[in-house]
Amino acid sequence: MSTNIETHQYGLTRTVESGYDETIARLRELLKEEGFGVLTEIDVKRTLKEKIDKDVEPYVILGACNPRLASRSLELEPDIGLLLPCNVIVSTRGGKTHVGAVNPQSMVDFTANPALAGVAHEADERLRRVIERL
Amino acid sequence: MSTNIETHQYGLTRTVESGYDETIARLRELLKEEGFGVLTEIDVKRTLKEKIDKDVEPYVILGACNPRLASRSLELEPDIGLLLPCNVIVSTRGGKTHVGAVNPQSMVDFTANPALAGVAHEADERLRRVIERL
Repeated sequence: MSTNIETHQYGLTRTVESGYDETIARLRELLKEEGFGVLTEIDVKRTLKEKIDKDVEPYVILGACNPRLASRSLELEPDIGLLLPCNVIVSTRGGKTHVGAVNPQSMVDFTANPALAGVAHEADERLRRVIERL
Repeated sequence: MSTNIETHQYGLTRTVESGYDETIARLRELLKEEGFGVLTEIDVKRTLKEKIDKDVEPYVILGACNPRLASRSLELEPDIGLLLPCNVIVSTRGGKTHVGAVNPQSMVDFTANPALAGVAHEADERLRRVIERL
């Protein structure tokens, strides 16, 4: 199990050995194993090129959703949709592949709704396993 | 200008008089006027029905992105993709249409990166105008 994980206040990130496309494919598989479907995908590089003609390195934002956890969180905090889905990112930085997942626990701290703690903790553990196993 | 806006720690919300579909259409127009494209759209009602056979009221999460502001924020904080795009929600609650927008300012406070303050302030003002004008 890799241990080069860096923890931000709002997520966890690491660098992996695999290439960009291979990492995205593997990420989708691992997310699925943890019950997360990928509902949205933003190709940041393509979007910035198209919209403002800016060149950046490959970067994708995947919006991952575990429907059971999302449903429970919406019952407890109807406006939690403002913070969903859980983002997972893959980018290339100086020839290395960089991955990250948002930290649902700290996102939920942000709502100041303690009832969400259980859901957040579970989402957190699942996303952490995904990032560790990449 | 309506003043029934409620401020959460993580966003602002209000109830509007218009219907669900009409509100979504108007929201897209207003976002465009403020330089935000809608990059993603999650139909929460349909997703929960399909994935876990759960019935909920209409609820959509739109992922709005102002490419100029997104680009600047990515330069200042490469992992900010974990918090992008800016979510805007529309839902039906007890026959009323409820709208909301995430608060970019407080999201950025979360990153503890003071360099993002200017971008966040601008995104905040633009999204607030969208919600006010609905």
